[in-house]
Amino acid sequence: MFDESLEEAWLRKYGAAPPNGSPELGRLLTHRSVRDFSSEPVPEETVAGLIAAAQSASTSSNLQLWSVISVQDSARRTEAAKLCGDQKQIHDAAWFFAFVVDHARLRSFAAEEPDALGSNEFFTMAVVDAAIAAERMVCAAESLGLGVCYIGALRNHPAEMAEFLNLPAGTFGVFGLALGWPAEDCTAAMKPRLGQEVIWHRESYNHEQDPTDYNQRMAAFYEEQHMRASVTWSMRSGRRATKPKLGGRADLKPFLESQGMDLE
Amino acid sequence: MFDESLEEAWLRKYGAAPPNGSPELGRLLTHRSVRDFSSEPVPEETVAGLIAAAQSASTSSNLQLWSVISVQDSARRTEAAKLCGDQKQIHDAAWFFAFVVDHARLRSFAAEEPDALGSNEFFTMAVVDAAIAAERMVCAAESLGLGVCYIGALRNHPAEMAEFLNLPAGTFGVFGLALGWPAEDCTAAMKPRLGQEVIWHRESYNHEQDPTDYNQRMAAFYEEQHMRASVTWSMRSGRRATKPKLGGRADLKPFLESQGMDLE
Repeated sequence: MFDESLEEAWLRKYGAAPPNGSPELGRLLTHRSVRDFSSEPVPEETVAGLIAAAQSASTSSNLQLWSVISVQDSARRTEAAKLCGDQKQIHDAAWFFAFVVDHARLRSFAAEEPDALGSNEFFTMAVVDAAIAAERMVCAAESLGLGVCYIGALRNHPAEMAEFLNLPAGTFGVFGLALGWPAEDCTAAMKPRLGQEVIWHRESYNHEQDPTDYNQRMAAFYEEQHMRASVTWSMRSGRRATKPKLGGRADLKPFLESQGMDLE
Repeated sequence: MFDESLEEAWLRKYGAAPPNGSPELGRLLTHRSVRDFSSEPVPEETVAGLIAAAQSASTSSNLQLWSVISVQDSARRTEAAKLCGDQKQIHDAAWFFAFVVDHARLRSFAAEEPDALGSNEFFTMAVVDAAIAAERMVCAAESLGLGVCYIGALRNHPAEMAEFLNLPAGTFGVFGLALGWPAEDCTAAMKPRLGQEVIWHRESYNHEQDPTDYNQRMAAFYEEQHMRASVTWSMRSGRRATKPKLGGRADLKPFLESQGMDLE
C-alpha cells in the first residue's frame, strides 16, 4: 500500500518527471496522512522499536527536551479526541501519542535558577527536538507499512490538554500522532506540493515567488478529491492567517506563560 | 558505514537487549551526527531527491510554512560558518542548508490583515513544519549512506543571519544542516539515550523520573570518548539552563519581533 514508484511520486508531487539520477527513496517520498485505520492492533514491541527510532533522532546538545505520552485507555481516548476537534482517526488508531515539549527534567537538574528555560531559544530548541523525534518515528512506522496522522489540534485547548495529561510546569503538549494500520479501503492521497524552485532557495532568499503553477495543480487535486474549489490554494491559505481562525490556539501565549515559558 | 544491527543499536542506546519482536529499522536506529566529511561531491539530482523527501513530510493544513536555502558559494560558506560558531563541518560538508520558518508566502496571499501570523500558534506550526521536513530529508540522506549534522548555532546571531540570507519579514532561520559523505575515518559515535521508561509515559505524565541509570551510561560514554566527565549528564545539562549560556540566542525575542513575530 502507498508504494508509488519514484516517477509516480514525483508526478503527483510536482506535476513533472524526476531529474535523471534522482535516488530511489521508496516510502519516504510517498507519505500521506492516514485517517482511516483498520482495527488490527500494533504490538507493544513494534511501538518500542518506533520509540527507539524517535530517540535516534538528533537532539540539541543531547538535552532530549521532549517526552511522548501514549493514550490507550478507551475512555481517555474519547476524551483526548474531544479536546482535539473530535477527529475520528484519534478514536480509531491503534495508538495515540501526545508529543510534549519537556523542560521539566532540566528544571529538576538545575543547581542554580534555570532562568533560561523560559526563553524563546529553549522553546524553539524543544519544539525542534520533539518534531524531529516524531518524524523519525513516522518514517520508521511508514517503513513497516503503518500509517500516521499528525494532530495539530492537540493545541486547540492547551490548558485542558495539560490537565488531561497531568503535565508539570515546563512542559507543553505540542502535537499529537495517531498511528495504526491503514484500513484496506483507505484511499488517502499524496498531496501535490509547491515546486522545488519555490521552497528551495539558492544562496539567499528568493523574493520572487509565484504560486500560479501550484494553484493550478491544487485546483486539479481539489477536483479529483471532490473538494469545493471555489478559491485557489493561496487564497484559502491566506484566509487561515487571521485571528478568528485561531480558535483556542489564540490562548497558547497565556498558557505557555502559566507553564513558565514567557518566551522572552 | 554506521550499519549496526538492531541488537547493537539497542545496546548502545539503552544498555540492554531489544524486546523480542522489535522491528528491523536499519539505518533509522543508527543515526549519529557526522562532523567529518569527505570531499566527495553530492550531485544536484541527489539533493533534489532529498528536497522531495523533505516536501513529502506532513505540513499543517498544507500551508508549507518553511523554506530551505542552500549555501554553496565558498566565500559565503565561510561567512555562514563564522556566524554559526565557526564549526568545521559547515566548511567541509558537500552541502549546507539553512532551514527557514516561513510566513512570508502566507503574508503575501492574505487579502485581509494576516493578524494571526505573529501568534505563538503560527510560530509553533512553522517550526514543526520546518523540523519534520528536515528530519525526513535526513532519514532519506542517511538511507543513501550520507551523513548530516544539525546546526542549532544558526540561531547564534539571528539578525546577522537574516541579513546574510536576505530574509524578508515573516521569516526566521531556525537551524542549519550540514550534509555530505562521511569521511572514511569518521568515527562518529551513536550516543546513549534516556531509557524508554523516562521518555515514554503511559496515559499521563510520569512525575517520578530518575536519571541515575542514564547518568551512569553517559559516564561510561564520556570515558570511552575521552571526554572530561567530572560532572554527570544531568548536572551538565542543568547548567545549560542559565541565561549566560544563551549567548546571542538571548536575542531571539527582539529579533522575532522585528520580523513581525510577537508570539502573542
